[in-house]
Amino acid sequence: MSKISMETIISLCKRRGFIFQGSELYGGLQGIYDFGPLGVELKNNLKQAWWRDIVHARDDVEGLDSSILTHKQTLKQSGHVDTFSDPMVDCRSCKQRMRADHIKDKKCMFCGSTDLTEPRDFNLMFETHYGPIQSDEHVAYLRPETAQGIFTNFKNVMDATSRKLPFGIAQIGKAFRNEITPRNFIFRVREFEQMELEFFVHPSQDDNWHQYWVKNRLDWWVNQGIHPDHLKLEEQKGDELSHYSKATTDILYEFPHGFEELEGIANRTDYDLGSHTKQQSELNITANVKENAASTQRLAIKSPQDPQPLVPYVIEPSAGLERGVLAILVDAYQEETLDDGQKRVFLKIKPALAPIKAAVIPLAKNKAEIVELAQSIKQKLQKIGLGRIKYEDTGNIGKAYRRHDEIGTPICITVDFESIESSEPSVTIRYRDSREQKRILIEDLINQFGQLIGLNN
Amino acid sequence: MSKISMETIISLCKRRGFIFQGSELYGGLQGIYDFGPLGVELKNNLKQAWWRDIVHARDDVEGLDSSILTHKQTLKQSGHVDTFSDPMVDCRSCKQRMRADHIKDKKCMFCGSTDLTEPRDFNLMFETHYGPIQSDEHVAYLRPETAQGIFTNFKNVMDATSRKLPFGIAQIGKAFRNEITPRNFIFRVREFEQMELEFFVHPSQDDNWHQYWVKNRLDWWVNQGIHPDHLKLEEQKGDELSHYSKATTDILYEFPHGFEELEGIANRTDYDLGSHTKQQSELNITANVKENAASTQRLAIKSPQDPQPLVPYVIEPSAGLERGVLAILVDAYQEETLDDGQKRVFLKIKPALAPIKAAVIPLAKNKAEIVELAQSIKQKLQKIGLGRIKYEDTGNIGKAYRRHDEIGTPICITVDFESIESSEPSVTIRYRDSREQKRILIEDLINQFGQLIGLNN
Repeated sequence: MSKISMETIISLCKRRGFIFQGSELYGGLQGIYDFGPLGVELKNNLKQAWWRDIVHARDDVEGLDSSILTHKQTLKQSGHVDTFSDPMVDCRSCKQRMRADHIKDKKCMFCGSTDLTEPRDFNLMFETHYGPIQSDEHVAYLRPETAQGIFTNFKNVMDATSRKLPFGIAQIGKAFRNEITPRNFIFRVREFEQMELEFFVHPSQDDNWHQYWVKNRLDWWVNQGIHPDHLKLEEQKGDELSHYSKATTDILYEFPHGFEELEGIANRTDYDLGSHTKQQSELNITANVKENAASTQRLAIKSPQDPQPLVPYVIEPSAGLERGVLAILVDAYQEETLDDGQKRVFLKIKPALAPIKAAVIPLAKNKAEIVELAQSIKQKLQKIGLGRIKYEDTGNIGKAYRRHDEIGTPICITVDFESIESSEPSVTIRYRDSREQKRILIEDLINQFGQLIGLNN
Repeated sequence: MSKISMETIISLCKRRGFIFQGSELYGGLQGIYDFGPLGVELKNNLKQAWWRDIVHARDDVEGLDSSILTHKQTLKQSGHVDTFSDPMVDCRSCKQRMRADHIKDKKCMFCGSTDLTEPRDFNLMFETHYGPIQSDEHVAYLRPETAQGIFTNFKNVMDATSRKLPFGIAQIGKAFRNEITPRNFIFRVREFEQMELEFFVHPSQDDNWHQYWVKNRLDWWVNQGIHPDHLKLEEQKGDELSHYSKATTDILYEFPHGFEELEGIANRTDYDLGSHTKQQSELNITANVKENAASTQRLAIKSPQDPQPLVPYVIEPSAGLERGVLAILVDAYQEETLDDGQKRVFLKIKPALAPIKAAVIPLAKNKAEIVELAQSIKQKLQKIGLGRIKYEDTGNIGKAYRRHDEIGTPICITVDFESIESSEPSVTIRYRDSREQKRILIEDLINQFGQLIGLNN
């Protein structure tokens, strides 16, 4: 178990403006969270890192952003309407409902009664109606995963980009699951974001690509600053495997509540494209798919080496963005006792992910030249475009340092009297991790900023 | 009217992979669209430009990312549950339902019958249930605007950031409206993204700030490359004004279907914070708000100049992202006839918004040195981090130029035999707008890349 409690992280997140309970003003919506001023920057930084590495840096992946509202037929064919459910039990005594697999010793987890109903299936999808008429015909679902929007756009993307195997389609976006018992802060929630890649391969190459993506994704999380000792791989066995999966390897992170899934890398075979294609009987689909009389497109590829049109296999690295944010925060959290006995908290977060890249602090708020110089430095650093720079004039300098330590700002820049009096104007910079301070010319600060805060480029 | 037809834009979007009909594979979901490989890049670029200018470049705005699923009480107090509706009419003859204000001459817009029902109100919000029990108590809504999540987090953000008036909270995210008759491609849709700023001001300063934001936002759209002649301001009068608004100025763009709203800048007075605050009777709320017995937070500010706690006024610049994307595409679309009589189509899009910043083309695909050099140039340009670079080896060079003209890529870079034979290796670059070609040293290409493609920094 991690040494930091979840309560410590939750408290920091609320106090500093990373994450708030959703609809808190009206008593809250369970399993729903809002990201505050710092949370949204961290989340955006993590999304952009993923997009740069998975889409931009590669020549074999295209991006996509499909809708949240999803056609009923899509989720019928995928199996979600029939099987995406948890067995639920009602307590006849206290009227609470709970997941059957959460009950120990056949007793209600709320009141201890043994007067429970038989388990019944409860679908985890959020249902709504589109158009003016609320009939069964007009049911749509909030997507339970971004993946289906990728599969149903397979031919659209192929037609627009002329791709050959292997290639992938990547997407970041919201997904919704009506979890019975959301828990562990932002770990298990009802509204969340996924970062999903569907990588289409020739069936003969599936195992190699599966291994490739497991390694690639594990390395990626380490590259985001997570200590390798806090990550481990786990292969899903037998019953744990989804019905569509030939093999799934989970990347687990040591959360405060134990090692749990951060990302899963699944070999989904030809189940998905095979489920959504028309003319199923003319294609050699290996997976056990539901008959499809509704699809209007053939999701197969013709290639020189295959005499028949081929339904590609798909390898899916699927990461939870909120879980990523939580892992980054937990792993970055540091406490140390200073020489004077005071405790210092700082977030040792990778600079590329830090919500704020630098704070510019005027030492005297009533001295116009200092204020103007600090503001002009802020603007110049902001223009470099490496992320948010904060002009910080609340509280005294000690408080500003503590605040920025706690939110992971790599450096604080202080503008003082020397800065405005010298013919070679300089400022003090203070490093978050070492607390070291040094004097630097403003010109050098601007020119070497990326390097100074620890960014690679 | 714009000279380009909507059909021309829709066709380009589908063919090149900007935008696809949502759930097209299963016959489509009306008013729902998916963004393809190029559309997602354009959308992300526009979002990032807004975020940089509205949040990062300013010292008086904080960011937020609140949930889509919204507490019923939030939308009761805001007035959406009771009043966010369109009057609808059913045709007894053809059974179609339509908006009452779309009917001309008392005849059905589908079959021409005059046998119509009286208008009835139809709420435009998408409704769902959260938690395991589908009762009225567990109704939640997909937010109809991102604004409400900002108002209900007002105190959370204040507590975390110690802001003083004036300051704003900005958010980009999905919103949902169950439009009766979605139309005009991505102009009026059921699922869309908003870029909203709620800027809180002292009530005595509301008119000044309203004017400030109207000018700021108009300038911003011009800065995104939209010709000023295609934009105009329109003040909403009398009946057009929402019940909460003291004044609203719309920025209209000349879409193919006429001048229509791209963004609205509203003076919402103290209606929103006044609606969601507790202790309403103790605060001098000027707007006509619904009584609130459910709120747990006081949404007021204490300041030295005001003896009483003050409910701030709010100025709201609210832009539709899809409308922005459509305006950018329409405005950038260019056709010209070349000397040989052929028609050339190109998107004269601002380089910062272009989905692909440069295409790197190996002139001979079977020459290993050329391929390797082209790939290494792609990687180096990609690493600069200015956006997506495409390694382009499909089709011949003429086709590649035409494709990249049509999707707005500012330059194409061609690697040829001279590139690998010379001691001072160079490539050809060709400009999208002028079709001019010039030879440039690879070293200079890398070092001056931002400038070469027309980015400011």
